[in-house]
Amino acid sequence: MRQRKFTLEENEIPENWYNIVADMPNKPLPPLHPGTLEPIGPEALAPLFPMALIEQEVSMEKWISIPDEVRNIYGLWRPTPLYRAYGLEKALDTPAKIYYKYEGISPSGSHKPNTAVAQAYYNKKEGVKRITTETGAGQWGSALSFACQHFNIDCEVYMVKLSYNHKPYRKSMMNTWGAKVYASPTDLTEAGKKILAQDPNSPGSLGIAISEAVEAAMRDDQTKYALGSVLNHVKLHQTVIGQEAVKQMEKAGDMPDIVIAPFGGGSNFAGIAFPFLRLNFEEGKNIRCISSEPTSCPKLTRGVFKYDFGDTGGMTPLLPMYTLGHDFVPAPIHAGGLRYHGAGVIVSQLLKDKLIEAVAHDNLEVFDAGVLFAKAEGIIPAPEATHGIATVIAEANKCKEEGISRTILFNLCGHGNFDMKAYDDYFEGKIVKHELTQEQINASLAKLNTPEIP
Amino acid sequence: MRQRKFTLEENEIPENWYNIVADMPNKPLPPLHPGTLEPIGPEALAPLFPMALIEQEVSMEKWISIPDEVRNIYGLWRPTPLYRAYGLEKALDTPAKIYYKYEGISPSGSHKPNTAVAQAYYNKKEGVKRITTETGAGQWGSALSFACQHFNIDCEVYMVKLSYNHKPYRKSMMNTWGAKVYASPTDLTEAGKKILAQDPNSPGSLGIAISEAVEAAMRDDQTKYALGSVLNHVKLHQTVIGQEAVKQMEKAGDMPDIVIAPFGGGSNFAGIAFPFLRLNFEEGKNIRCISSEPTSCPKLTRGVFKYDFGDTGGMTPLLPMYTLGHDFVPAPIHAGGLRYHGAGVIVSQLLKDKLIEAVAHDNLEVFDAGVLFAKAEGIIPAPEATHGIATVIAEANKCKEEGISRTILFNLCGHGNFDMKAYDDYFEGKIVKHELTQEQINASLAKLNTPEIP
Repeated sequence: MRQRKFTLEENEIPENWYNIVADMPNKPLPPLHPGTLEPIGPEALAPLFPMALIEQEVSMEKWISIPDEVRNIYGLWRPTPLYRAYGLEKALDTPAKIYYKYEGISPSGSHKPNTAVAQAYYNKKEGVKRITTETGAGQWGSALSFACQHFNIDCEVYMVKLSYNHKPYRKSMMNTWGAKVYASPTDLTEAGKKILAQDPNSPGSLGIAISEAVEAAMRDDQTKYALGSVLNHVKLHQTVIGQEAVKQMEKAGDMPDIVIAPFGGGSNFAGIAFPFLRLNFEEGKNIRCISSEPTSCPKLTRGVFKYDFGDTGGMTPLLPMYTLGHDFVPAPIHAGGLRYHGAGVIVSQLLKDKLIEAVAHDNLEVFDAGVLFAKAEGIIPAPEATHGIATVIAEANKCKEEGISRTILFNLCGHGNFDMKAYDDYFEGKIVKHELTQEQINASLAKLNTPEIP
Repeated sequence: MRQRKFTLEENEIPENWYNIVADMPNKPLPPLHPGTLEPIGPEALAPLFPMALIEQEVSMEKWISIPDEVRNIYGLWRPTPLYRAYGLEKALDTPAKIYYKYEGISPSGSHKPNTAVAQAYYNKKEGVKRITTETGAGQWGSALSFACQHFNIDCEVYMVKLSYNHKPYRKSMMNTWGAKVYASPTDLTEAGKKILAQDPNSPGSLGIAISEAVEAAMRDDQTKYALGSVLNHVKLHQTVIGQEAVKQMEKAGDMPDIVIAPFGGGSNFAGIAFPFLRLNFEEGKNIRCISSEPTSCPKLTRGVFKYDFGDTGGMTPLLPMYTLGHDFVPAPIHAGGLRYHGAGVIVSQLLKDKLIEAVAHDNLEVFDAGVLFAKAEGIIPAPEATHGIATVIAEANKCKEEGISRTILFNLCGHGNFDMKAYDDYFEGKIVKHELTQEQINASLAKLNTPEIP
């Protein structure tokens, strides 16, 4: 019997997170104060985050120890399995060897608890009583609800209205873990009221929901805010994925030529790719790391590298990022987790330095890929994950054309159990191609009067 | 760091299924022909099942080899993890040690693929082109759709209308794997038409859906039927669960005093319990095995041990079983998989011989248990699984009262990702106690003019 699953023991859960900043040739530029345009220090983030996370956000240490309390909860689902995708290889008739790391076995069904548990832990340690956050598809909100439940912290989630309506059972899941969930934009915050005044039927966006959650967190001292992607400490926490995958690929007696992951704010991609980029830095390997974004929200492939706000309301510091402009509202695709206007700072710098690559896939192409995968491998992927699968298929087809066997690894970041409406829409022919014209992108960018990158 | 997860390698997937019939002191009585009331031979089942499965149905061999092709697909999710439930122990403040085997990581989210894959394999081997089946909550239908997709067999699922409406995304999942799904009762079969004529708004039942699927399978030679529980070969296939659990408990340096599982038709219970009963038979251990059924469908705790039909329409052979009568229609509880009027033949005989135990839990009690578990352990259980959890809690509380630490193992047979409406109903106060009076049970049993057990 050929081996298709490569597992690790619970005591092989990584003991440290890997901080790629230590190895980057060009370090990320500092965030700027939106008023003074001066670099801001860690203390500026103190109203929003506990100090331990702020320290991680700016740390230059290569390895940051994972507390036992966090590893202990990781043990509920980690280490996650790594699979050889024999079914997909056969379906594609490709000489490529395809592997995937499967994060969907976590309680909330995606990679998000890797950072949610860590963030809840540090908040608890510093006496925080309540955490506010935003969520797109609901994966992040679910993960934080689960984590807060574990540490007995109140959790309030501003969920993008589009997803709130698409995925009602994500809300039920969060409720089961004791969280409060609001459809954003709400009339509970000034940021939300402002959007509703402009457009009472606004479907919302991650940028808007972030503004609301940040505003809600600022109201008292015992409430903090948590972000599910983009920031450095979030990417850091996700590196448990790639560290396990490196070990598992070694167990499989193989090593990827190409590592692929979907791209929303960057934490999913960072999680699997950074530990392989470490091998590029340390051992001179040449592993290609490719991020997969939707053509309807193409910040990496069609955006600009510029200072921009992390949220729509302009409440965050200015971050040096690939962006489509902070009030860009993407088409209402089902991959809610990828509907974010900007890319995290570290990933942006890596792309600028050509140390990673980016590609974009159309909405219809990704569902074709997702259904092909579900039939070939049995797991129904989340709409976000289908973007990575589309890139895998493109690379596997290239292998076939060129007659070359490359080894491809991708991060199957979550299952689609809460996204079956998206699959219904696909089977009913309701998933269509989204054309995003250069004029539309230019119009959004024209409004962006933030500083250029020096 | 204390270990909470006990895993096995892919090559530790069991190589044989365990056939408990070989060890039973009193063998199950034979099925009877409903016309002649004579015992029927295996050939009577040939229109419905491939010969390999019929042989397993009547086999007296203790160990039956698992084909490599089946083990290879099992490798997609097996071996499943076994957890120490530290969170639940803490929440209950009990001296009991609680473990659970988690079958929810399979592609369709329950233990059902263990037999679906085996059944699809043997059907394929004998040239079957199409399989019909019924499904309650949708877990079995999903599992068979997944398995048929793998072997390129058409799959048609008659889904109990109540569940079809409660759980629309189970249908989407089956569609994604290429299956056709009908809300039963349908007007596609005579059995369905008859029910609809009596009650056009019938919510359906497993018994009715079985009648429909059996009738549809009888129409041509290349179509067979598959059942997701009750039958001996189905129970047989599920014994991979308990065999793994025995090894994992050994790895944990422990052994259960009590093994618990929810009870619908018996395959879930059989899967975890039979390999521990083997230790009772072979090694003289005294492990208590308890099945947990809903008070609204209490065949084991309040039914009679009598010959009865497996379906509502009276199309199957007469089986010696604990039953509430084949046209008993249970209350519309969310645990659709437990809404079946009878118990499998082997489990019935074991209960009759007092080698296993049975308890029943009310609908509200099980959701209290499910939400407590979700908060304590992170995994949201399927409504079926909450019945087992309710028994675990009762036994753990007994340990507390008596000041005794017993080791309890239960089968967490599936996640509740497709059952969030049930949790919504619970939080909205819509889950109520169901009183089932003795008069109601008597009324159903009075219609049962089938033979007594000799």
